[in-house]
Amino acid sequence: MDKILRIDMGAPGGPKVKVDGLGSYAGLGGRALTSMIVATEVDPMANPLGAENKLVIAPGLLSGTAAAMSGRISIGCKSPLTGGIKEANAGGQPAQVLARLGYAAIVLEGNAPEGKLYKVYINKEGVKIEPADDYKMLPNYDLIDKIKASYGDKVACISIGPAGEMKLSAASIACTDMEFRPTRHAGRGGVGAVMGAKGVKVIILDDSGLQNREPKDPEKFREANKKWVDGLRSHSVTGTALPTYGTNVLSNIINESGGFPTRNFKEGKFEGVSAISGETFADIETKRGGNPTHGCHRGCVIRCSGIYVDKNGNYLTKQPEYETVWAHGANCGIDDPDTIAMLDYLDDNYGLDTIDMGAAIGVAMEAGIIPFGDKEGAINLIKEVGKGSYLGRIIGSGAAVTAKVFGVERAPVVKGQAMPAYDPRAIQGIGVTYATSTMGADHTAGYCIATNILKVGGFVDPLKPEGQVELSRNLQIATAAVDSTGMCLFIAFAILDQPETFQALIDMINAFYGLNLDADGVADLGKKVLKAERDFNKKAGFTAAHDRLPKYFYTEKLPPHNVVFQVTDEELDSVFNF
Amino acid sequence: MDKILRIDMGAPGGPKVKVDGLGSYAGLGGRALTSMIVATEVDPMANPLGAENKLVIAPGLLSGTAAAMSGRISIGCKSPLTGGIKEANAGGQPAQVLARLGYAAIVLEGNAPEGKLYKVYINKEGVKIEPADDYKMLPNYDLIDKIKASYGDKVACISIGPAGEMKLSAASIACTDMEFRPTRHAGRGGVGAVMGAKGVKVIILDDSGLQNREPKDPEKFREANKKWVDGLRSHSVTGTALPTYGTNVLSNIINESGGFPTRNFKEGKFEGVSAISGETFADIETKRGGNPTHGCHRGCVIRCSGIYVDKNGNYLTKQPEYETVWAHGANCGIDDPDTIAMLDYLDDNYGLDTIDMGAAIGVAMEAGIIPFGDKEGAINLIKEVGKGSYLGRIIGSGAAVTAKVFGVERAPVVKGQAMPAYDPRAIQGIGVTYATSTMGADHTAGYCIATNILKVGGFVDPLKPEGQVELSRNLQIATAAVDSTGMCLFIAFAILDQPETFQALIDMINAFYGLNLDADGVADLGKKVLKAERDFNKKAGFTAAHDRLPKYFYTEKLPPHNVVFQVTDEELDSVFNF
Repeated sequence: MDKILRIDMGAPGGPKVKVDGLGSYAGLGGRALTSMIVATEVDPMANPLGAENKLVIAPGLLSGTAAAMSGRISIGCKSPLTGGIKEANAGGQPAQVLARLGYAAIVLEGNAPEGKLYKVYINKEGVKIEPADDYKMLPNYDLIDKIKASYGDKVACISIGPAGEMKLSAASIACTDMEFRPTRHAGRGGVGAVMGAKGVKVIILDDSGLQNREPKDPEKFREANKKWVDGLRSHSVTGTALPTYGTNVLSNIINESGGFPTRNFKEGKFEGVSAISGETFADIETKRGGNPTHGCHRGCVIRCSGIYVDKNGNYLTKQPEYETVWAHGANCGIDDPDTIAMLDYLDDNYGLDTIDMGAAIGVAMEAGIIPFGDKEGAINLIKEVGKGSYLGRIIGSGAAVTAKVFGVERAPVVKGQAMPAYDPRAIQGIGVTYATSTMGADHTAGYCIATNILKVGGFVDPLKPEGQVELSRNLQIATAAVDSTGMCLFIAFAILDQPETFQALIDMINAFYGLNLDADGVADLGKKVLKAERDFNKKAGFTAAHDRLPKYFYTEKLPPHNVVFQVTDEELDSVFNF
Repeated sequence: MDKILRIDMGAPGGPKVKVDGLGSYAGLGGRALTSMIVATEVDPMANPLGAENKLVIAPGLLSGTAAAMSGRISIGCKSPLTGGIKEANAGGQPAQVLARLGYAAIVLEGNAPEGKLYKVYINKEGVKIEPADDYKMLPNYDLIDKIKASYGDKVACISIGPAGEMKLSAASIACTDMEFRPTRHAGRGGVGAVMGAKGVKVIILDDSGLQNREPKDPEKFREANKKWVDGLRSHSVTGTALPTYGTNVLSNIINESGGFPTRNFKEGKFEGVSAISGETFADIETKRGGNPTHGCHRGCVIRCSGIYVDKNGNYLTKQPEYETVWAHGANCGIDDPDTIAMLDYLDDNYGLDTIDMGAAIGVAMEAGIIPFGDKEGAINLIKEVGKGSYLGRIIGSGAAVTAKVFGVERAPVVKGQAMPAYDPRAIQGIGVTYATSTMGADHTAGYCIATNILKVGGFVDPLKPEGQVELSRNLQIATAAVDSTGMCLFIAFAILDQPETFQALIDMINAFYGLNLDADGVADLGKKVLKAERDFNKKAGFTAAHDRLPKYFYTEKLPPHNVVFQVTDEELDSVFNF
């Protein structure tokens, strides 16, 4: 992993490949690498769909090693959704395979001429780029079927669906999972639209004949990895809750807290929650012959995912994540698991962010396009996106544009990106993260739910403003570091509560690279990443005014707690004081 | 004109009227008054469609007097199109009538409950507000017909069409002209959407029984007004060019300069220009029995407007302005006057900004929705807006949203507002105004065309960056002052070239109000207005990054001069150094 693969998609005569050393990027992985490359090489004033933007795809520092949970891949660029810097990461197989191929990053530069579409094939021999006209406008599942026929199912793919080709602002990038299905998405910020603008339909990664990356100190590495796995297995969230019910274990919990945004963020509790809870999904999956406990990539020991099958026992989609269940469920007033699973499948197939899609449908429901609770209507809306109809293009541009086009005031967005499944009035810590994250509204950027609701890493009262800024600041710093390791963010539960598990992670990195990193060094990395991202955003025109929630979160009381967001502007402006 | 009429459209139990004194707003009119009220009373972080926004309608300082050319009305708010402060002004009758009624401003506050629509009737007895359900979704011409039946044609109206009711970001506010037609629009920035959000369909102004406002020194006022009229009549632009051919005298001139944006700003000359020039329009109007020389309000001595009739001699629309002819003509590759006139009529009828509509259609053509030059296609697109179809809502949201939804990189917008009819690469001075104006891309905010092309007020080479910042700065300051007097901006040609005509204007203001204003005082007013506007925008999140043209104007050479925009960022950032 000591080289960077650069492909100029706009080179005269066709795509041109160049392999660089790491240079000043040495020692960086995942989000640290994508954000540093974007911050260094992309003009903050560039048009996100223009040739000047770059799409950077980077496995984490520990990806491609034997380290458990190291399968996240980071994808970065200037975002067409927010206009700021973006890193969206995904699970699945590509991180491990790309790392074993030796690439710290793939950087797609320039734009292919309008109408040209390519596939990129990478194996140990090198890189092959060919026209992919026969893949044009294929949904992800159909695309992967075609690729399977040509390349087998041992490869890993990074691809876009029709939404990315149409350059829609909510287009995702799909990564294939262990079953070679396109189910793991770098969902947020329209990264798929940038890949579409580059003219790349799919990157096929083939690590045949290659082995895991070797640590500098194999013995220490093995030892640390054992402690690491033990720590993850012994924590109640990563050892029990997530494997049993998946991320959707949260539906009941967040609903109980009164922070489960319902019908476009009008209420904090959803009367239909029990029908769509993680418990119910697991029950359905078990009864129908699906599987409620399943990993998204090899080396996962949490296995929070699952397989959702239809009434006849046929595969429908992977077990929908909590945020997807919320977005297409409570936020749309829909309480039917099969509808939600179908929407999840359609989002994955067309290549769309489930969060911005659920938020956009919620806004469309508020505008009266379809009523809240309309299951068929919601499915049709996503199908419209796949078709590229005018309505579909509106929805596929995300919740902010949908609100603008339909004249709806209540758009739950920050920096143009839709809020996820936690109402910032009833869970004030996550509101600080939504407001101030460099990414726009993003729960993963500083997951205060852990401490506000799950009492992991201590407890800060979710209904009060006190302590939220410090909580969010620390989590944002830690997350920026974790996102650079290739580690799944869910390890955070264990490392926040168990110092020895955190130490095991640091030991693994040190043993692998021959370093002497400590906890402060990890925090320093996180701070460095955040500062580079924030500096990019500042140059792109972001100010304190962009670090705010929409006005109505300050004035409209959320039942049942009847609370508004109370963290002051001055406090929000202190998040990045480090 | 010593009182402000405030109407709280969201008051419990229905709209509530309150009449205030001027207080700290004393001495302000037009744009100075709308911008000061918005800057003082509206939270810069407010949602433009939310109850916190205010719509301020203010005649100028000299409106309602015998002063020639004093018929402009300013309409201000936080803009749903740009997200910043907005003042859009229009001709027609309302300024004079509202001023005679004694109101320095109408301020619409709060939002009527969803689905409620009202009409506001104002005469010397007071204010009457009634439900206007029978006016719902009426286009402006149909609305005015209905009003004529109830109120006669001696009133003046300020109204929105379906676009405003749909809260589309490019919705205009219509003002009736001397023939009681809804042809004069406060077009830019989506002011119509804000009126729609307030729930006001139309304001009917009736000055029966009222006279012109009386100056403090009638003798001096009369004398100054005479010099004023003489000055306007003797200048070649205001005395000859504008009366003869209207504003569209510019098509040939700007095309000749190579700065006539053609087919979505791809070229600077349009091969079809002669078919759509002001000369051709005047010829058609004369031959068919229309009228090429006609004022938009009583008291106009320039009479740059006209009456366009169809092949059978029936009224079709007022003579389309240069910017409209360009937007629907060269920018869409359309060279047919009847098509352009029909588009102008449709824009007026639905209540839409012709500039953002032409730019949006140009972007849609670039996206391949219809081909460049498709006359019927362009008419259908505007009809779609009137219908409120999904496609129509996209187009009606303006060029920036249209580009986002269709994944088009080349969107000719600044701060979300479409550039008008002058390419900033071939006419660099106007590029400085586009980039830095508080209003988004706006030619009227600092009309450098005067000095770059028409050689009014001296000459600054349009193709070179030198001198443009100073030119734009001075014009932006002067314009902010002129926009506060109620004077039509076209007086600028005469006052820039003829010091005695400028003095006559100052003498009129002094004679009317008993003041001792001088040229420096006028400039001070302009600076004060700009500073308040810029301060509002800063609080709303605007930075130097927003004072830039889109990237492609810096990289894509415009034929035939093959120039890019060359004014540096540092120079742009110095515009407001005063």
